[in-house]
Amino acid sequence: MTICALATAPGGALGIIRISGPQALEILSHVFSKDLTDAQPNTIHYGHIKDGEEMIDEVMVSIFQAPHSYTGEDSAEISCHGSRYIINRVLELLIQHGCRMAGPGEFTQRAYLNGKMDLSQAEAVADLIASSNKATHDIALNQLRGHFSSELSRLREQLLKLTSLLELELDFSDHEDLEFADRSELLEISKTIDNHILRLATSFETGQTLKNGIPVAIIGKTNVGKSTLLNRLLKDDRAIVSDIHGTTRDTIEDTIDIKGITFRFIDTAGIRQTTDEIEQIGIERTYAAIEKARIVLWLLDAEPSEKDIQEIQERCHDKSLIIIQNKIDKSESSLFSLHSPLSSHLLKISAKYGENIDALETAIYEAAKIPELTENDVIVTSARQYQSLISAHNNLTRVVEGLETNLSGDLISEDLNLVLDDLSDITGQGRIVPNEVLGNIFKNFCVGK
Amino acid sequence: MTICALATAPGGALGIIRISGPQALEILSHVFSKDLTDAQPNTIHYGHIKDGEEMIDEVMVSIFQAPHSYTGEDSAEISCHGSRYIINRVLELLIQHGCRMAGPGEFTQRAYLNGKMDLSQAEAVADLIASSNKATHDIALNQLRGHFSSELSRLREQLLKLTSLLELELDFSDHEDLEFADRSELLEISKTIDNHILRLATSFETGQTLKNGIPVAIIGKTNVGKSTLLNRLLKDDRAIVSDIHGTTRDTIEDTIDIKGITFRFIDTAGIRQTTDEIEQIGIERTYAAIEKARIVLWLLDAEPSEKDIQEIQERCHDKSLIIIQNKIDKSESSLFSLHSPLSSHLLKISAKYGENIDALETAIYEAAKIPELTENDVIVTSARQYQSLISAHNNLTRVVEGLETNLSGDLISEDLNLVLDDLSDITGQGRIVPNEVLGNIFKNFCVGK
Repeated sequence: MTICALATAPGGALGIIRISGPQALEILSHVFSKDLTDAQPNTIHYGHIKDGEEMIDEVMVSIFQAPHSYTGEDSAEISCHGSRYIINRVLELLIQHGCRMAGPGEFTQRAYLNGKMDLSQAEAVADLIASSNKATHDIALNQLRGHFSSELSRLREQLLKLTSLLELELDFSDHEDLEFADRSELLEISKTIDNHILRLATSFETGQTLKNGIPVAIIGKTNVGKSTLLNRLLKDDRAIVSDIHGTTRDTIEDTIDIKGITFRFIDTAGIRQTTDEIEQIGIERTYAAIEKARIVLWLLDAEPSEKDIQEIQERCHDKSLIIIQNKIDKSESSLFSLHSPLSSHLLKISAKYGENIDALETAIYEAAKIPELTENDVIVTSARQYQSLISAHNNLTRVVEGLETNLSGDLISEDLNLVLDDLSDITGQGRIVPNEVLGNIFKNFCVGK
Repeated sequence: MTICALATAPGGALGIIRISGPQALEILSHVFSKDLTDAQPNTIHYGHIKDGEEMIDEVMVSIFQAPHSYTGEDSAEISCHGSRYIINRVLELLIQHGCRMAGPGEFTQRAYLNGKMDLSQAEAVADLIASSNKATHDIALNQLRGHFSSELSRLREQLLKLTSLLELELDFSDHEDLEFADRSELLEISKTIDNHILRLATSFETGQTLKNGIPVAIIGKTNVGKSTLLNRLLKDDRAIVSDIHGTTRDTIEDTIDIKGITFRFIDTAGIRQTTDEIEQIGIERTYAAIEKARIVLWLLDAEPSEKDIQEIQERCHDKSLIIIQNKIDKSESSLFSLHSPLSSHLLKISAKYGENIDALETAIYEAAKIPELTENDVIVTSARQYQSLISAHNNLTRVVEGLETNLSGDLISEDLNLVLDDLSDITGQGRIVPNEVLGNIFKNFCVGK
């Protein structure tokens, strides 16, 4: 059936309405001022959308022909004025003439079903649209361009090689010496594949962190300048973005981007209220914030007690702790005794006057310990893909055990087939993916993609 | 200079970035995977946007060539994934390669300067994008299609005819009898033109009302069902719109559309709080609401006192008053005595069960007394156009007075020229429009249009 949907956010100067399906050009021709059923592919046509004699809008229409379109079907895009009324009228008209409203991600789902991309690429489309910094963008684009898919197909090839070696072993099962030689090679290949799969699986944590932002806590006594520092870090970032007029970024509260990585400040409500009342519950709040953080900024304007130093350092034993002396405009570094255990670790700033904030940002970025991503790095960001990788790892562990305990080749083969199935689940290729699984993948897409 | 801007709202599946200007195709070719400087006009090209070796996004690019484009210049549209990061990167890249960010309405301003449309049509573009119902949409589309412009050019022709008749009079100024004959004809033509101009000017009020919504007050005692009725009217309307998934309409609080006209409920905060405390200030609030309304819905569940009837009717003397008996499911119409002065005017409904709400909506629509708009009706919606029309009317009034008082023809000619200038101001044709005026017209446009 032919589907239609608004592909842009409502409220702009332009709205793009997408149509895809066998009747796309026929339905469009019913509501357009020209017959487009024989229009050349990849051409643009000026005219108007009409409901009988009533004119709805002056538009531009782009024509795509199967299989050379996003979905692989005949498709069209109507570029109309972005008025809510016009968009509703055009969609209503298309539906009256035989279209159905597309579900979330249905255009991409059709692209998958028509072999234009595999499932991991389809998931990358949603990630790409949601990407808000260089890291998440690069990961999604790499996956969309098929880097993950080709890694998976290399793994499949190795698994198939394993399978054929096992079959060879079965054929020669009379020769005991041959079996021994093959098994050690098989074991080595299996372990290599498993390492690769595990590396992909563990990249999921990095992917999630990059997607959600790295949690940062700012701790310190009242009036030490936590709120000023927070605003300073946020403002610096906003300023860069607002250079480009007209692309008002959605206000994402209390996150900053440093070199393409998003950092998310936690428990900032507490930071912003600095009344005495709040101070009462300050210590527990601080500990809770440390608990949730990966990076802790400890802001000081005087030398802390040895007890405090010990307490904070203990609680940050698995975090990156950055100790900062604020208000260098006011206080002298001599406030800290030369013998203070902290004196050599202090990062000295003035949140108020913006001094040394660049150095602090560099310190935060380095504390995140995110490996530089190269173009070919594959980072798994989908929980579904992660689960398949973990399942593949578990099944492959049984293969390794089977090889080590001299299990018979046909039993090992069964486990190997399960590993192959797990990898096929990720791309959805060479395997029938249940509608339920497809539904889960595409339900989080926007309508119109 | 070549300009660029995001033409869609941020946050959708797709984002459209527009480029226009002499270098549009050259700059685009620097950041696109193919050279497009010799691309055929009105064609679509698949490829990717790149920053040197770094790939930013897979996109579709549409190519338009001067003068056959919206702006009349060489232009292109990049259809990219709607990620904020991608959109910012693409705009940054275009700027690096020589584009400038477009100001609000700058594409449309260029369309005007290149003779693709006149100023009244340019203003209609902004109105069309902002239109949220059939009435405002039809008015804007009529104006965009040039109906107002052609009315103005007809008026100009008549004014020019007047001028030439006056010149004829001057040529024959020796013949006293001729002068008399001409003047009565001139007077008649002047008055006809003035009537026409006045009719256009007075349409501004209708235009404003349609744009802002017709104010409706719901009045009545506490617990008579005002809040239930309001929700019923709002909900009915919402239901229609939510039929089309994916086009989430911006929540416009407390307005409903009936047959393409927007009605705006006033002082609804008061309606929604029905505590005793509020009741204390109820009467003054009611009178204030009536004051602001054009249509008053008086909701009753029992017969009001004669004093109340008189008071309300008096305050509604210049409004449309609709008297409604609510809760017909509960109370009997016998609650109202047969001799009640209201009994024949009552509209009986049940807000709770939705009974007779259709009839109420029809009554509200009719009470608005909006003339049915035909396709060729011109409604002025811009304050700038209105001011020019009023100025034309004032100058034409002096022409009429001059003709009546036998003022000399060359003095009348001067006033006639002022009228012609006033009309030219509206379309901006045949007259140099100061940058300041252009700035005022386009500053309220969205960027990207």
